[in-house]
Amino acid sequence: MKNIIIASTSTLHNGDYLAYLLPELKLFFQNCSEIIFIPYARPSGITHENYTKKVAEAFAKINISVKGIHEFENPITAIENANGIFTGGGNTFLLVSQLYKNNIIDTLEKVVKNGTPYLGTSAGSNICGLTMSTTNDMPIVYPPSFRTLGLVSFNINPHYLDPIEGSTHMGETRETRINEFHHFNPQPVVGLREGSWLAVKGDSIKLKGNLTARIFKRNENPIEVVPETELNELK
Amino acid sequence: MKNIIIASTSTLHNGDYLAYLLPELKLFFQNCSEIIFIPYARPSGITHENYTKKVAEAFAKINISVKGIHEFENPITAIENANGIFTGGGNTFLLVSQLYKNNIIDTLEKVVKNGTPYLGTSAGSNICGLTMSTTNDMPIVYPPSFRTLGLVSFNINPHYLDPIEGSTHMGETRETRINEFHHFNPQPVVGLREGSWLAVKGDSIKLKGNLTARIFKRNENPIEVVPETELNELK
Repeated sequence: MKNIIIASTSTLHNGDYLAYLLPELKLFFQNCSEIIFIPYARPSGITHENYTKKVAEAFAKINISVKGIHEFENPITAIENANGIFTGGGNTFLLVSQLYKNNIIDTLEKVVKNGTPYLGTSAGSNICGLTMSTTNDMPIVYPPSFRTLGLVSFNINPHYLDPIEGSTHMGETRETRINEFHHFNPQPVVGLREGSWLAVKGDSIKLKGNLTARIFKRNENPIEVVPETELNELK
Repeated sequence: MKNIIIASTSTLHNGDYLAYLLPELKLFFQNCSEIIFIPYARPSGITHENYTKKVAEAFAKINISVKGIHEFENPITAIENANGIFTGGGNTFLLVSQLYKNNIIDTLEKVVKNGTPYLGTSAGSNICGLTMSTTNDMPIVYPPSFRTLGLVSFNINPHYLDPIEGSTHMGETRETRINEFHHFNPQPVVGLREGSWLAVKGDSIKLKGNLTARIFKRNENPIEVVPETELNELK
């Protein structure tokens, strides 16, 4: 049975790393004394070691130890044997490139679909969708494909940002970008605002947190859905 | 002799399409009665026909006619025979995919390096750099490569945006993204604010417009340069 948290962000403004999620994570990872962390997205270019250390400090507060996937000789068997997995945020192009380079895309998909608890934040959530094509990140490296894990039948847009009223900036709004996406791709997109997450349990996909999420379907007007909405029909 | 305008944006807030650039374009394209427009980036998914019409309306004000590259049977010979070329903004991933699909990357590079006047705005400016890896756009389609025209020896970040003071949004700032780029790529990046452009004439590359531009070099602090600064040493 799938058991997944797909979170928009790791960190709320003025909050500590993962702090707002820790009560949820204590329950979510209750059967895990150790989880594997995938640090490949390297926010601000932080090293795998330092990123893993930061994550370990947060998880220590709920008595879970953390080992970085780079510490294992064989990342494939590491994923296969993991009790729980967390993929952190950073750059999605880098994350996806490294997942392919280390040949763990298929294994990751398989174990999470078979029930290994998986937490993603930001870039780690982007890869839960069918493709990474609704990331907000800069294409700093060229991945071999935009296909990602397909743990849900739609795409994720984390850090979803409403148009800024009164902005004089002429760059595209997030909504404009997602509409452009829908000229070339059929799948719906869930815009997850910071503080929101999707809880996937078996066939159920529920919106969690205090905020509404924005759902974009091809050729339809976007809609807002409230927390606890069931999204398992979205495809 | 290279003759290129690399503009951050086509349109200023509260301005008409290309309006702020028209006096400059009248001089720039003074020997052209007709130019070729490359509409591949399709902002908001607009059709090639409608995008070309919009551009033709703007250029009519300076008595230049516009033909879309999609109107030619052979885009390669169209580019070879063009008196002037304009590539408009939209989605850079889509633009680059279409340039490769129509096999005109190399021809475009060749004719512009040989002196055909070239105007780029936004996505059309991104492709003037060594790669498209500092675009702000969403990766809605998968291009065969991120390599672009290399008309200058650095990368362009159009619509450069300063960090928004007091923002509570936890997504990366533009500067953070460019710093991440420099963990994996050596070339400098010119952050061009809206209203700025680079004028390339032969071996000279000058910043134009009223604003400073922000220059990012690997392992160095970013610097601001004023209009009329010569950037031909930047590589």
